[in-house]
Amino acid sequence: MPDGFQHAYEVRVRFAETDAQGIAHHAAYVVWLEVARVAYLADHAGGYRSIQEQGIEALTTGVQLEYRAPAYFDDLLTVWLRCVDLRGARFRFEYLVGRGGEPIATGSTSHATVDRASRTPTRVPGWFVAAVASAESPQARRRA
Amino acid sequence: MPDGFQHAYEVRVRFAETDAQGIAHHAAYVVWLEVARVAYLADHAGGYRSIQEQGIEALTTGVQLEYRAPAYFDDLLTVWLRCVDLRGARFRFEYLVGRGGEPIATGSTSHATVDRASRTPTRVPGWFVAAVASAESPQARRRA
Amino acid sequence: MPDGFQHAYEVRVRFAETDAQGIAHHAAYVVWLEVARVAYLADHAGGYRSIQEQGIEALTTGVQLEYRAPAYFDDLLTVWLRCVDLRGARFRFEYLVGRGGEPIATGSTSHATVDRASRTPTRVPGWFVAAVASAESPQARRRA
Amino acid sequence: MPDGFQHAYEVRVRFAETDAQGIAHHAAYVVWLEVARVAYLADHAGGYRSIQEQGIEALTTGVQLEYRAPAYFDDLLTVWLRCVDLRGARFRFEYLVGRGGEPIATGSTSHATVDRASRTPTRVPGWFVAAVASAESPQARRRA
Repeated sequence: MPDGFQHAYEVRVRFAETDAQGIAHHAAYVVWLEVARVAYLADHAGGYRSIQEQGIEALTTGVQLEYRAPAYFDDLLTVWLRCVDLRGARFRFEYLVGRGGEPIATGSTSHATVDRASRTPTRVPGWFVAAVASAESPQARRRA
Repeated sequence: MPDGFQHAYEVRVRFAETDAQGIAHHAAYVVWLEVARVAYLADHAGGYRSIQEQGIEALTTGVQLEYRAPAYFDDLLTVWLRCVDLRGARFRFEYLVGRGGEPIATGSTSHATVDRASRTPTRVPGWFVAAVASAESPQARRRA
Repeated sequence: MPDGFQHAYEVRVRFAETDAQGIAHHAAYVVWLEVARVAYLADHAGGYRSIQEQGIEALTTGVQLEYRAPAYFDDLLTVWLRCVDLRGARFRFEYLVGRGGEPIATGSTSHATVDRASRTPTRVPGWFVAAVASAESPQARRRA
Repeated sequence: MPDGFQHAYEVRVRFAETDAQGIAHHAAYVVWLEVARVAYLADHAGGYRSIQEQGIEALTTGVQLEYRAPAYFDDLLTVWLRCVDLRGARFRFEYLVGRGGEPIATGSTSHATVDRASRTPTRVPGWFVAAVASAESPQARRRA
C-alpha cells in the first residue's frame, strides 16, 4: 500500500484505450480516475446518486496528471485515491496509479458542489464530510 | 460523389482515436457517423435542438458498419450520408466513409423518435419529413 | 443464461460513457463488446497476445448492434457472447447485452485474420479453431 | 486574441463527448488539446510525422486543466495554444479554451522526446526548436 493511501480500485486497460504509440492514451487516465472516484463514493459516501438525490451536483473543476511510465493493453492497474481538502463547496482527490508495485502516474482532481437547479455553489453536505473523514481516518487504515 | 449520396462532411482522424494496431479504432467510426448526422440535421432540418425544442428526442436504435480498409492518424475522411425510410416514428441514415476516392467503410444507423417526457414513440414531425425530402430530392442534387 | 450463450463478462457503465440524453452513448457498446471479446479470448484461446505472437493480427471487419433499452450510469451489464462461423480467415462473435434478466442490446462483430507483416489474409490457426470449438461445445455448457 | 497567444484551432463539441450532467465530459478537453497541438505542429513544424520520421517520438508526460465554465453539445470552441519551455528533451504547451470571447478552460501539457527504438530521452531536434521559435515570435504575431 503506497504511503498515505488506504483505498484502491482496479482497472484493466482496454484495447480501445490504446493509441498508435502502442500505449494507453493519456486521456484514458482521466476516465480511470473517475471510475475509481465513483467506486470510492459508492463504498464510502452512498454513491454519486445519494449526492444527486439531495439536489447537489459535484462538478469537476480541475484535473492534473503526471505520467511516469507507459501503460499497455490488458495491463491490470491499481488506482489508489484519497479525498482531501474538503472546505465549503470544494474538495479534491489525489491519486496514484500503479501496476504491480510500480507507480505509473500520479494526479489529482478538484471538485465543486453546486445546487443542481440554480448551479450556484452550495456547501458539501455534512454527512459527506463525515463519511470522507471516516474513510480517510487512521482507524479506516487499521480496519482495512 | 458516390452514387446516391448528395451530402458529405469531413472528419480528420484524431490521435486519440487510433489504437495499438496503428489504425483508427472501429468504435471511432460510430462517433464519426454521428458527427456527420448532426451536421446534416443542422444544415437541412434546423438541427437536433429544433427537434428537442418540440419535446421530441431522436434515439439511436441500431448501428451497422462494414470496415473495408483501415483509416490512419490524421487521415482526412469524407462521410457521405443520406436520410432514408422515414415512416411513423422511425428513420434511418446510410453512410459511405471515404478517403479521397477510396471507400473505407459503409454503414447505417436506425433511429426512433420518442416523446421526451413520456419516452413513448411519437411520429417524426411533418416538417422534418418535408425537410429530409427536400434535402434528398434530385433537385437538391442539381443545386449542390 | 440466455439460450445459446455459455460465456459472459460484466461491464459497469462509466460516467464518461453517458451522454446528454442521460443514457450510455451508443458507441460505448462497441467498446464493451470488445472488452468481453478480449476476456473470452483470454479465458479460452490464450488471449490476443498468443494470436499476435504467431504473427497474426485479428481485424474487426464489421459491427452490428440493435439497442432495445437504454443503459444508465453505474448499471452493471452482462455481455453474453459466443464465437461462431470460423471459416478460413474469418470468424464472428454474437452478443447479448443484459441488465439483470432484461436484454438491452444484441449485436455481432466480424473478424478477419491477416499476416501481421504482409497484411494479407491468413487462415485462423488450427489451435484457435480447436479452442473455440471446445469453449462453445455442449460439454462446456455442462462444465460451466 | 487572448494575451500571449497567436495561434488557435476550432473544435465543435460532439454529442458523444457530452455526459449525463448535460455538459462536455472533462476528459474530452484532453483530446481537444491534442487536436489543437497536432494542428499546430502540422502548421508550424512539419507535423508529428516529420518528428517520427527522424526516429523520435514525442510523449505526453503531464496534463493539467482548470475548468471555468461548462461547454455544451454543438458549442464551437477555440483552442488557443503556444509552445513554451523547450529545453533539452522537453517542451510544454499552454492552452486557453474559449467560446466566443469567454474563457471556459485553461491548461498545459508537458512532453518529452525519446528515441523511438531505445525509448531513451533524446534532445528536441534543432529544426523543431527553430520552427517553434519562429511560430511564437512577435513577427509571427504581426504576420497573422
